[in-house]
Amino acid sequence: MDKVNVEEKLRLFSEHWSPKIIGELNESYIKVARLKGEFLWHRHETEDEMFYVLKGQLIIKFRDKDVVLNDGEFLIIPKGVEHMPVAEREVQVMLIEAKTTLNTGDVTNDRTVEKPEWI
Amino acid sequence: MDKVNVEEKLRLFSEHWSPKIIGELNESYIKVARLKGEFLWHRHETEDEMFYVLKGQLIIKFRDKDVVLNDGEFLIIPKGVEHMPVAEREVQVMLIEAKTTLNTGDVTNDRTVEKPEWI
Repeated sequence: MDKVNVEEKLRLFSEHWSPKIIGELNESYIKVARLKGEFLWHRHETEDEMFYVLKGQLIIKFRDKDVVLNDGEFLIIPKGVEHMPVAEREVQVMLIEAKTTLNTGDVTNDRTVEKPEWI
Repeated sequence: MDKVNVEEKLRLFSEHWSPKIIGELNESYIKVARLKGEFLWHRHETEDEMFYVLKGQLIIKFRDKDVVLNDGEFLIIPKGVEHMPVAEREVQVMLIEAKTTLNTGDVTNDRTVEKPEWI
């Protein structure tokens, strides 16, 4: 049972779109990620997902609107809702997700991270 | 589906030891709280609990050690582990908890918040 310093964890890697696990509680993982550029349209059929912006700006695109998140803001995306994260410049985020959540949701391609790394 | 600004939510109240719900995903609530002084020894028999310090310093006391959390640090307390949060000066925290979690765990007294408020 050790404390976690979120900034220190983010300093351990530099790649984009590769969430790392930094904690687990109940049926959820706490992850951090660096995001830059466009991800891909996807949905999580059975899991809600939370994006919490630590540093930078993240746009979550939906089919009917965009939501812009800045430092200290979060958005919870309900299960089943199609979305695409976009970051013009690098953004650092914390993710709260069910342990079963796959980063690309209902899509499987070269950006899918089947087993996120613990750091 | 609206974004949440965590600092704005914290500005909506000033009382201590009264967690407010600011989001829900899957089987969890996201809460914020202002803590000051000593809480009480308690445990959550079936739920892990996460304390994430936004601003200030929080000490989580265990029977065999203390863990000191500063800005940007979190600790996940496994179910069943007795603990007592203490803050010398006011600290602002985000909590991630199972929806079933009661703030005072296995203790019920005047500090128990049966139904936390949504803000």
